[in-house]
Amino acid sequence: MKRFVLAALTASALSTPTLAQRTPPPAPAQVAPEVDRLRDAALTDTVAWDIVEGLTTEVGQRLAGTEAEARARQWAVARLTALGFKNVRIEPYRMPVWERGAESAEVISPFPQKLTLAALGHSAATPAAGLTAEVAVFPSMAAFQSAPDSAIKGRIVYIGNAMPRTQDGSGYGAYGTARFTGPALASQRGAVAIVIRSIGTDHHRFPHTGTTNFPVGVTPIPAAALSVPDAEQLERIAARGKPIRMKLVLTPRMVGTRESGNVIAEVPGSDPSAGIVLVGGHLDSWDQGTGAIDDASGIAITAAAAKRIMDAGQPRRTIRVVWFGAEEVGGLGGAAYAKAHGNERHATASESDFGADRIWRFEVNLPAGARPVADRLQTALAPIGVARGSGLGGDGTDIGPTLKLGTAAIDLNQSGWDYFDTHHTPDDVIDRIDPAALRQNVAAWTAMLAVVANAPEEIGPVTPR
Amino acid sequence: MKRFVLAALTASALSTPTLAQRTPPPAPAQVAPEVDRLRDAALTDTVAWDIVEGLTTEVGQRLAGTEAEARARQWAVARLTALGFKNVRIEPYRMPVWERGAESAEVISPFPQKLTLAALGHSAATPAAGLTAEVAVFPSMAAFQSAPDSAIKGRIVYIGNAMPRTQDGSGYGAYGTARFTGPALASQRGAVAIVIRSIGTDHHRFPHTGTTNFPVGVTPIPAAALSVPDAEQLERIAARGKPIRMKLVLTPRMVGTRESGNVIAEVPGSDPSAGIVLVGGHLDSWDQGTGAIDDASGIAITAAAAKRIMDAGQPRRTIRVVWFGAEEVGGLGGAAYAKAHGNERHATASESDFGADRIWRFEVNLPAGARPVADRLQTALAPIGVARGSGLGGDGTDIGPTLKLGTAAIDLNQSGWDYFDTHHTPDDVIDRIDPAALRQNVAAWTAMLAVVANAPEEIGPVTPR
Repeated sequence: MKRFVLAALTASALSTPTLAQRTPPPAPAQVAPEVDRLRDAALTDTVAWDIVEGLTTEVGQRLAGTEAEARARQWAVARLTALGFKNVRIEPYRMPVWERGAESAEVISPFPQKLTLAALGHSAATPAAGLTAEVAVFPSMAAFQSAPDSAIKGRIVYIGNAMPRTQDGSGYGAYGTARFTGPALASQRGAVAIVIRSIGTDHHRFPHTGTTNFPVGVTPIPAAALSVPDAEQLERIAARGKPIRMKLVLTPRMVGTRESGNVIAEVPGSDPSAGIVLVGGHLDSWDQGTGAIDDASGIAITAAAAKRIMDAGQPRRTIRVVWFGAEEVGGLGGAAYAKAHGNERHATASESDFGADRIWRFEVNLPAGARPVADRLQTALAPIGVARGSGLGGDGTDIGPTLKLGTAAIDLNQSGWDYFDTHHTPDDVIDRIDPAALRQNVAAWTAMLAVVANAPEEIGPVTPR
Repeated sequence: MKRFVLAALTASALSTPTLAQRTPPPAPAQVAPEVDRLRDAALTDTVAWDIVEGLTTEVGQRLAGTEAEARARQWAVARLTALGFKNVRIEPYRMPVWERGAESAEVISPFPQKLTLAALGHSAATPAAGLTAEVAVFPSMAAFQSAPDSAIKGRIVYIGNAMPRTQDGSGYGAYGTARFTGPALASQRGAVAIVIRSIGTDHHRFPHTGTTNFPVGVTPIPAAALSVPDAEQLERIAARGKPIRMKLVLTPRMVGTRESGNVIAEVPGSDPSAGIVLVGGHLDSWDQGTGAIDDASGIAITAAAAKRIMDAGQPRRTIRVVWFGAEEVGGLGGAAYAKAHGNERHATASESDFGADRIWRFEVNLPAGARPVADRLQTALAPIGVARGSGLGGDGTDIGPTLKLGTAAIDLNQSGWDYFDTHHTPDDVIDRIDPAALRQNVAAWTAMLAVVANAPEEIGPVTPR
């Protein structure tokens, strides 16, 4: 409550004539000392690391809809309860489940050798004995799209489409099309299978899996990602000018409808009418690593920050921590959440699902009356290296359906410079996490929650970005 | 110290009186301008890269004794002939061949999950359906060795024995014992299988394979290396204090006696009585990467340097380039070479088998009368960052049997700081090679050959180190 009053005073102080008449840059919005104290204390956090270490060690991979994801939910309920959260529960839903099978690739000619690859989520299977065909090599989506169907029909299509490294992850949307839509397009044009260059920025022999989509009416074909070195190897072989024959064995399958679920925990607020502050990440992971950066870190960071607010005294707004299920295979947990809770009043929604590197930027989508909240966030986050971005916030697969209902958004952006070195690979393990960077994340989220959950302003609906 | 005194005397003999009378450091030995010219021209070399790129693309992996290694020999003969070398030939020998099979590891309890591993060379097989047993976890060789047999009998032994990073690779000898002798010791003490922490310095999920030895009379058991993250995962699970049950599937096998061979090429010298300058590396590789740093780079560097000397005019001594076979599985090519050629007069032997990072040091084992050669090497190599080491040269599996016969040695040492990040992993591919560092290697070897092959001094036998 004390924080509440201070925050209100701060907001009015901003409009004093002396300050307002100054030339830019404006004086920073003031935040309560308690916010600074909570933020700095979080720089020594151990809760987030313990969650990541515990979940990745005691459960490991937790592919959506599998018994491993179910074990993860039980683990989550136990841990969130032990941390002192209220209303800890699982909200189940059912989903079709895809599981990986055997997978191998072999160049039969001109230069016999094995290549490393991983099936994409929703890939169809080859015959168990494999499928052999000539490879049609396209260095980019554009080359694939402009090629005649005759160059594709009956072939295994290869698409390069190398993704550049970017801090904000924008390369993923632009270059990920080879994975998102390449397989369906190849199927429609008569390809018997497709292998893509991994949507990754590393040069290690880890293939990057991920979901692809075959829209209704498009026949799924076997679809896989080569590691980047293997993709470049295939292009080097192609550069010799001889036809390439490849044998693929991919035996994934849809195993039927199974249970998945979201795990929910709360820090009840003193003012239920002020709306829920929704935070979280996803509990499921891809099946080859242990999902440390994707997304044990996200659930750990958000829960650790919420616990710090809880332990400091009851906030004004209820903080709801959601560890979503089945994000990787299509955001089913996020959709189920919005369906179940879309009629509740949410003040803001924020998701951590971009690894565990340091947060460098925040962006918001707030209603006009709540804009001072963003000014205070700017003040509170600057000391730990987080600047205000110029874009409109509102990013995240899991909170997406909730944002679409008009919920205000606050994004805390991790640096993605190295994220796609590891994303969706067997190498997504705890070794990839820098404990100091993880603590900086907890500090940023703690400061954000301290400001937002206690903001005196009304935080009403917005137009989604 | 003795060497430094001689170096000073040499310097005075080769330099003006004014320079010779100065206090240390002594004036450098002088080298012919042609040496500098050849060295610097090699900094733009493309031959070595083309060999690495060609062999790793057009052949790929080439496990000793397999048809892939045979294809590599054919490739080698064609390439060495095309480069203009004389007396290009294959010298075959026969060998017992080990081949990898299926391999998987699974923690059954307390926390079910798969682990990543690779069989060690000469590992025995589990039953095809796998072998399940309790794991005895030892963080080090010392802990394993001091444990009672009762803690080992009937168990799958795990040995940690983490190897530190060193520039000179000395950690490998000291900490590699877990691989070299751990499996045989575990067998002798009643273990049913062994998994070790990879002998590697990285934290990626690549297991590091390599040969282990079961001496005559010791029953081979299934033996494999976990990737470093998986080894640390197993240790984290063990730290929870509950018994660990693991299921192992490893189905490698000895496939019988097959042909392997050395590929030899020469630059004939003008003075056959002056002895052969032997250089080379090994043509075979482990089976999971394409053997780019181990050891396509070594054969490429030495051949590229020899070609530069050949193209510059006939050297005094014959330079013999040997691309040895079957190094990885026990140095069979090196032994076969010494058996076939040990009676020929060799002036020096030098091997490149430590990757493709920059050469930082050279060390020699030369007879007293030839020590001025080392002084001139010091002068010739200093401009490209290569300093004279204080140790005695004479290192290398392939040249080892020839050195044992008393051949003088000149070692050009690559920096091994990063070498064991990739060594014996699927990630040993061309992506790991820095073209500029590879060119520096060629320059160093070119300078060495220019000095040694044309040295006027007699280079007689030495006492092996």
